[in-house]
Amino acid sequence: MAVYTHLGSERLAELIAAYDVGRLVSAKGIAEGISNSNWLIETTGRDGTGARYVLTMYERRIDTDELPFFLGLLDHLAAKGCAVPATIHDTHGAGYREIDGKAVALIEFLPGVSPSKPTPVQARSAGAALADIHLAGMDFARSRPNPLTPDHSAKVLFRFAPDRLRRLDPRLAAIADVADDIAREATQDLPRSIIHTDLFPDNVLMLGDTVSGLIDFYFAAEGAMAYDLAVTHAAWSFDQSGDAFEPAIGRALVDGYESVRRLDPDERDSLPILAQAGCLRFVASRTEDWFDTPADALVRRKDPMEFVRRLEFYRDRRQKAFP
Amino acid sequence: MAVYTHLGSERLAELIAAYDVGRLVSAKGIAEGISNSNWLIETTGRDGTGARYVLTMYERRIDTDELPFFLGLLDHLAAKGCAVPATIHDTHGAGYREIDGKAVALIEFLPGVSPSKPTPVQARSAGAALADIHLAGMDFARSRPNPLTPDHSAKVLFRFAPDRLRRLDPRLAAIADVADDIAREATQDLPRSIIHTDLFPDNVLMLGDTVSGLIDFYFAAEGAMAYDLAVTHAAWSFDQSGDAFEPAIGRALVDGYESVRRLDPDERDSLPILAQAGCLRFVASRTEDWFDTPADALVRRKDPMEFVRRLEFYRDRRQKAFP
Repeated sequence: MAVYTHLGSERLAELIAAYDVGRLVSAKGIAEGISNSNWLIETTGRDGTGARYVLTMYERRIDTDELPFFLGLLDHLAAKGCAVPATIHDTHGAGYREIDGKAVALIEFLPGVSPSKPTPVQARSAGAALADIHLAGMDFARSRPNPLTPDHSAKVLFRFAPDRLRRLDPRLAAIADVADDIAREATQDLPRSIIHTDLFPDNVLMLGDTVSGLIDFYFAAEGAMAYDLAVTHAAWSFDQSGDAFEPAIGRALVDGYESVRRLDPDERDSLPILAQAGCLRFVASRTEDWFDTPADALVRRKDPMEFVRRLEFYRDRRQKAFP
Repeated sequence: MAVYTHLGSERLAELIAAYDVGRLVSAKGIAEGISNSNWLIETTGRDGTGARYVLTMYERRIDTDELPFFLGLLDHLAAKGCAVPATIHDTHGAGYREIDGKAVALIEFLPGVSPSKPTPVQARSAGAALADIHLAGMDFARSRPNPLTPDHSAKVLFRFAPDRLRRLDPRLAAIADVADDIAREATQDLPRSIIHTDLFPDNVLMLGDTVSGLIDFYFAAEGAMAYDLAVTHAAWSFDQSGDAFEPAIGRALVDGYESVRRLDPDERDSLPILAQAGCLRFVASRTEDWFDTPADALVRRKDPMEFVRRLEFYRDRRQKAFP
């Protein structure tokens, strides 16, 4: 949540002039994005009736070589009618520009707010929107292998001595112990497309019960579509305060997904192990952050145990998770 | 620059429903305000054509008892045609509401961007807009004494041992030494109104060369109008990088001001000492912050010497400053 770079209004106006979007009217740094700076931009619009955009400056983490994949994907999905923001190209056709050595992209602004307590009806819409991008992504010409495979998660956890994990929580050490098995079991030959891999409710904009936008595609990659559904299931189906599974949310997500794209029997059978693999990814990244972030840092560390408990749930109650 | 409080979209929608502004469409935490959290809010609007607002949550510093002054002032000035955002009242007529014990206010959104390198034409517009609020503020019914008088600044500086100031910079200690004299000299019987007292370029929104909004009135108070002009002069008339005085900016500010409200001879003669008093205020607050903020804190400390140098300029070059 930050704006890392100060961009004076004169620089912003100059940048906006490189696009066919009218003149700069307003610019507000917005508190979104972990490794990007973002501004909500208003312009007079092509036709003078006003238009809004999000300007993203890529501060770190994202390799500029990957921008054509991420920005091209938005264009591809938006052109096929998916609820994703399109990339605005400059008057020379470029999808991103550079300022002070940093890449910046102008992206369509979409209305909507992210539900903090999604209802089953909202979950159903989100499931359907996920299936939409899976179908639309199948013929996207660019490719990006997923760096965050279950294998990778297992390797991350192996970096930490079992004793160290045990001191944080014995159940974390127990998961690290079987991470290899989960990774092996989860690696299956299932139908693939471009997948979002990070569709937490934060990344879904809604107007009432309708999805108005899926956002933050910077973890998108090729992968098993059922894995993406399982990750979304793990991200949505537990209540905020504790870890209580909310069966109505989980069911609505899968139902909504299947209202657009039917899962085949192999995919369906794999959901419990894929959900464990999804949880394993967040366990790994949060464990890494936990040990790498000083306890007194201003950044709040996310507790890795949250997804340890969800992983255990998918392992021990697979029938309840996916009835 | 922060959003201190998380407000879920459901809470926000509930809050917005208390106003006659249509339904919530979008909400983005914006990176503005030092002691407030702010969201840029979009709604369907009263007539369904869309409307935008800034939602401010008062986190600290501001005494809730003072909100009727600040919010009522915006209403008063906006009603008189000044370029300030009006306060939106809820369906019961209240200017602010409470959430979790914190006051929140919904305020009109104004277009425009703050110039980071103002031009003389822009300075002229800002000067005129300042005079507009002075004239319009004269019959505002509420009052608020200014807590940040020159006397107060002198007292703040006296809290620090001269040796401590000298170690930071001998010129800072020299200013502290004469702070009392500046305060005494600057306290004069001049025409008064409600004054902004903090009109840095950051707090002026412009569309091209036209002022579209003066914002951030949370230092507004009763005071000498010429003092407000002098503070604005000190805030605008020096180049960003260094301390070079920009005579064209200073002259344009005063000319613009006088195009709306003529200064009387006493006010004109007082500008150099009032500008010194204005600088003294920022010297005092920045010195306080400097000693109270650890050098390794994430918050960037503003250098008190910047306004020491400007104060010296107004003292030593009064003819050049106000020809």
